[in-house]
Parts: sequence; structure tokens; C-alpha cells
Amino acid sequence: MIIQAKVKDIRYRLAQNAGSDAIHRNPMYAYTTTLLKDEAGLVGTGLTLTLGKGNDLVQGAAQHFADKLIGKDIFEIMHSFGMIYNTLANDEHLRWLGPHKGVIHLALASVTNACFDLWAKKLGLPLWKLLSTLSPEALVSLLDFSYIEDALSPTEALDMLRKEEPLRSSRLHITNTGYTAYNTSVGWFNYSEKEISENVRRAIDAGFAAFKLKLGSQDEERDIRRAHLVRKVAGDDVKIMLDVNQQWQIEQAIRMGKALSTMNPYWIEEPTHPDDLLGHQRIAAAVSPVKLAIGEHVPNVIAFKNYLQLKCVDFVQVDALRVGGVSEFIITSLLCRKFGIPVVPHVGDMGQLHQHLVLFNHLALGHEPLFLEYIPHLRDRFKHPAHVSGGIYHTPQEPGSSCDLIYP
Amino acid sequence: MIIQAKVKDIRYRLAQNAGSDAIHRNPMYAYTTTLLKDEAGLVGTGLTLTLGKGNDLVQGAAQHFADKLIGKDIFEIMHSFGMIYNTLANDEHLRWLGPHKGVIHLALASVTNACFDLWAKKLGLPLWKLLSTLSPEALVSLLDFSYIEDALSPTEALDMLRKEEPLRSSRLHITNTGYTAYNTSVGWFNYSEKEISENVRRAIDAGFAAFKLKLGSQDEERDIRRAHLVRKVAGDDVKIMLDVNQQWQIEQAIRMGKALSTMNPYWIEEPTHPDDLLGHQRIAAAVSPVKLAIGEHVPNVIAFKNYLQLKCVDFVQVDALRVGGVSEFIITSLLCRKFGIPVVPHVGDMGQLHQHLVLFNHLALGHEPLFLEYIPHLRDRFKHPAHVSGGIYHTPQEPGSSCDLIYP
Repeated sequence: MIIQAKVKDIRYRLAQNAGSDAIHRNPMYAYTTTLLKDEAGLVGTGLTLTLGKGNDLVQGAAQHFADKLIGKDIFEIMHSFGMIYNTLANDEHLRWLGPHKGVIHLALASVTNACFDLWAKKLGLPLWKLLSTLSPEALVSLLDFSYIEDALSPTEALDMLRKEEPLRSSRLHITNTGYTAYNTSVGWFNYSEKEISENVRRAIDAGFAAFKLKLGSQDEERDIRRAHLVRKVAGDDVKIMLDVNQQWQIEQAIRMGKALSTMNPYWIEEPTHPDDLLGHQRIAAAVSPVKLAIGEHVPNVIAFKNYLQLKCVDFVQVDALRVGGVSEFIITSLLCRKFGIPVVPHVGDMGQLHQHLVLFNHLALGHEPLFLEYIPHLRDRFKHPAHVSGGIYHTPQEPGSSCDLIYP
Repeated sequence: MIIQAKVKDIRYRLAQNAGSDAIHRNPMYAYTTTLLKDEAGLVGTGLTLTLGKGNDLVQGAAQHFADKLIGKDIFEIMHSFGMIYNTLANDEHLRWLGPHKGVIHLALASVTNACFDLWAKKLGLPLWKLLSTLSPEALVSLLDFSYIEDALSPTEALDMLRKEEPLRSSRLHITNTGYTAYNTSVGWFNYSEKEISENVRRAIDAGFAAFKLKLGSQDEERDIRRAHLVRKVAGDDVKIMLDVNQQWQIEQAIRMGKALSTMNPYWIEEPTHPDDLLGHQRIAAAVSPVKLAIGEHVPNVIAFKNYLQLKCVDFVQVDALRVGGVSEFIITSLLCRKFGIPVVPHVGDMGQLHQHLVLFNHLALGHEPLFLEYIPHLRDRFKHPAHVSGGIYHTPQEPGSSCDLIYP
């Protein structure tokens, strides 16, 4: 039984220029951390990330959700988490502040993720292993199908999961070899061209074969120059992803997408505002064969459904800390699987939680194991930091979702 | 110069069952109230509405925005409000909590609206009169065109406003005759059929010729019975709007839209989730000629742009308390004018602010003066409550935007 629900506002200063992008010139990383303690003293930890200011707002909202879980048994909660999730997400007062987006939805992520963490710890299993051994029925009962049944019904989800079930064991070898990482920290927006070149060389030496570069400057020449520089330093065999952080208007995105196609980007990420579905459709059609990655700021599975139905996203970057937590991450991944679109999460959690989820996506949903974003700035703040070497996430073995922080 | 920025969390209990809908069975009305005081002691008041719990979160976010205005002159702020708005809306930390949606965007509405109120009071003009006498250039400088330039550029907006400018004076007679009101308070969700019948009769006697009924019960028969009841009591000459408050899945919306067409609704409002753009497209096509009203929970002008481009909304219900305030309301109204779609605001402000904005929309933008929602539950809480009689909003004459509250 959950006897205590504490939500903390924890903020970290980053090294100079680390984490900077076209919007965030001076970021912090901050976690709204939900701690659910049961009568045995076990603590489930759930996170959502913010960039500092406003983290207190998410904390306040998460406390509303977390309080509702006090007195409940974690196994009962997880037995029909889809229903509990639906009830929380549609709180008749808080829903007005969304619905299903912004502060309240980030808060819900933190609380949902604490439930999944406590559950896995209670069973003594790493989250990826727990999720990957659940029956199709148990998985479906974790999910809320509201507003997406026209694209994916519970019955259809069950059929998909049943088809994948016999294949799970044949995929288990990935837990021995590990999951490929890509490196985002080589090319932050404020880094000089010299720094970026050195970072890329160092990362290649460390075994990485995929990098991200932050673009979205209003100095278009700067963007083009830096993109070509990274290609030149890295060579033709590595994958280079270009991240615009929503800085382009539609026409500009089309123009820049075409201009950048000559350095062969693996994807262009967040070219414009995440609410502009039809804008993305226009951009996708105009810059093809250049591919688009979208999802860091797409608020919920309903919005993702629209992107998938309109076929204007090539990589879905759903983040379990920004949608309503692990549960909405899973249903979004299922929907992507149905539409044949890979899931490459944005990792606000430094990869701690998502290393579990991408393994699950491969093992139980049959998603292709592409690669997972790696941003190590806070690695020393975690009790069990993701173990990345040779450009590979090594499979976590500790019980839970690897989200426990070391408190100062 | 603004010397003080105070944000208050003010909550009101409603009479039993008042304000209830399919989601909100036990609502409160709460305002996040921004008070900007200048050195002369004049106070600009801006509101956003919430339903109680969580109003403190909006208050916290609004304080962040409001603090940035301290030391600034209101005329300087309003001289290029579009730029100031853009800066506030893209605060590099708070933007992460949206972008442009949820708690932070509601908060921005409250602060924006306080700026417009202070400005009008400083000039001694009711807001509708101030806005309707501004030059096209001055109006355009109030607006932020980010992410909508593909649909409406500043130049195009200027052209539109210039074309309307000579027609403004010919439309002024509406300020004498008043603006038609429609009555939402006859048909709250929890009201019995007897209460609704009595309310409708009473409202007809009071001069109303348009009503709203709250549907969205999972008991579909109840919805159909109540809709036909209102039609029977009200007769064929009145307009009846049906509000579903997002409770239907797509297939259900199509089935129910067809079933309800026989009672000839003037519109069906919020049939499903506001983020499901393509869902609305399917519903609109399937239930035509029944018309759809959408907007209460559409978070910003970018999302509205998509609805307009896809032609799946017949009435836009943009609410200046839910988008980023008066400024985003105006640019959304301009966009609607371009697409030939009427604006019928949702009124979380009890009509206080919106009575000014619909007059402006008619006078300066050339929108057809349809009618404005009337919900009087908090009328006695305002210093200058909207004066509605004979089913007509009489034109406010006091300086400002009529949003000052009487504090307990």
C-alpha cells in the first residue's frame, strides 16, 4: 500500500553552454520527481524534465495526482492502470488546464512513471524485463485508448501483441549486445565550430556512429556551414541528425531543408511548431527524401495519431517524460508500429528510463532497434547511471526504471 | 510606468448544478487575476478562468510573466505589443511547459489582458472603442505572426484592415442597438428535464432566441431525449446549440451527429478531443449539413490555423482567456475573417471582456455580428457587470475591459 507521496523540485546547473539550443541559450535541467513510498519502505521514483523556471508548477500539479494514490496497492493500480490513468488524466478540474498537455500532463508523467518504477521494484525486476514478460492482456490493461480507437482499438492492440509474443525470446540477444546510442552532446547550439569538431572526433573515438547538431539560428549561413562541417569531420559513414528546435517558419523550413539535403542528414528534427500538423505535411512533401523527426513537444497520443495518419513524420520521438508517462509512451509506440514508423525517443531523462522502453519496444512490439539518444550531463546524479560504452547502452539489471537520484 | 504586478487566485462556489457539463459535474469558477498598477494608481485587470483546483498553478505562472512588465510604460508596451507578446510567450524556460498551451498559456492570457485593460483605462476608453479606432498599422503591431505567416502575413493583415477601415463608421449603429446574446445557463448537464423546460420558457420570456444544451452523456438516449425536449419547448424559430464537451469518440460522434440532425441543431460543439484535427475532419464530413463549433480548448492560433485550413470548423469559439489573451484573439479573428468563418467566442469571462471583442470584430474586422454567449453566474462579482436585457448585450461605456472584480 502506498503510504506517502512526495513530489520534489530538483534543479541542476549545467556546464557552460551544455544543453543549449536555438531556444534555450542558458538552460538548466530540472526534475519534478515523484516519490511513492509503500508500507515496506520501498520507494517508486518517477521523473519529468523541465528547464528550470516553472518546475515548481509541475511539482504542484504532480502533488495533486500523487495524493490520489495514497492508500492504494501498487499491484491493484497496475492491474488496470489504463483506467486509473484515464481517471487521473480527466480530473474534472485539472483537465481544464490542458486537456492532456502542458504542466498538468508533464506532472502526470512524473506520477505515472513512479507507479511503473515502484511496480518493477516490488517485483525485483528491471522495468524492461517486467514489461517484456507481461501477457498481451496485461499490457493492454495498462493503456487508455480514449480518442484513438478509430486508429487502434484494444482488440487490434491485443492481436498485434499476440502476434509478437512468440517472437519475444528470439529478440532477447539484444539484452546481451546492448542498444546503440547516438550522441547529442557534441553539437550544442552555443558551442564553437572548433569545439564541435573536437567533440565529434572524440565521440567517434569513443565508438559513436551517430550525432546530433543543433541548428535553428536565424543566421541561415551559420546553420549550413556547421552542418557541412560536422559531415566533413565525421565522414560519410556516420549518421548526422539536425535539430531545429521549432525555429523555422514553413517557407524557411522548405528552403533550408532543401539546402541542407546536400550534407545528407539522417533526419531533420522539429523544423517548426509542433502544433502545426498541416505545416509539417507541407514541409515533409517539399523536402522529401529528407526525413523528419517529430515528437519532443507533441503532447499526447491523440496528436501523434494525427501525425501518423497524415504520414508526415518519419521518426516518432515520443518522450515518456512529456506524454503522460510510460503508459502513453507504450500506446504511442503501438500506434507507430501499426503505421510502420520507428520510435526514437527524445530523452529528457538522460536515457535512464528510455533505455528500458526501447528494449521493450523491440522485444514485445517488434520495433526495429534503431538507436537511443545519449545526453550524459546528469549521469553522476543517478544512483544507477546508464552504462554507455563503445557507443552502446548496456542493458540495465537493477530493479525498477533506473530513475533514482542521488540527493544532495 | 507599471510599479506593481500582483496576481490573485480567486475562487467562487456556484449554485448547485450550475456550470455542470459532461466533464465537470461539480465545477467552481476561479479566476487568475493579474493586477498591473501604474505610478498614478491606475490598475489594469486581466483574467483567465479555471474550474478551481489548479488555479494556483496558473497564478504562479502568471506572476513570472507579470514581473517582467514592472518598470515598463504601458504605452511603450502597447506600441509594439506583438513583440513583447512574442518575448513572453517564448520565455526560454517556461516555453518548455507548453509551448503555447496549458497552464503557461492561460497565465499569459491573464497578463496580456491586464495590459489591454490598463491601456484602455489610461486612455479613458472602453476597450472596444479603443481597439476600433486604432489605425491598421497600430493593430498589426499588437499581433505576433509567428508560425502563421504561411496563412496570413503582416502585409496581408494590413491590407485586410485597410479595406475595412472606411466601413467602420457605417457599422457603429450596433453600439446603439446592442449585440445579441445567447443563453447557456438554461441547459446545464445536471439540470433535470423539468428544470430545463422551465429555464427555456423563462429565457424566451426574457427575450432570448438562442440556447445551449449540454450533452455528452454516455447514455445516448438521454442526450437525444433532452435535445428534442428543448426543441419542443422552444419551438422551431429559436437556435439550439448542442455542447458535447469532447465526450464522443469519432464513430460515436458521427452516429450521434446524424441522430441529432432531426432536431435541427444550430451547431454541435466540441464533439471530440480538441487535438484530433483529422477526427474533426471526418466528423464534419459525415454529419454535414450539421455544423461544428470548436475552439474552447484549441490552445493557440497555430492550431486554429490548421482547423481553418482543413475546413472542418463552421464556428470558431476562440476565448481570449484561453489563448494568449486579447492579442491572440484578434489575430485568430483576422485569420477567421480571411477564411470566411464566423467567430463566436466561448466566454469564460462571463462575457465581460468578450462583449468588447465581438464589437471590435464587427466594427474593424467586418465579422458578421452573430451572438455572444451569456453566462451570468458571476455577474454580481464584477464592478461593471455586462448589462444584458431583452436578450441583448448593451454596449459597455466604462473605461477598460469591464474585468474589475469586487473583492470580498
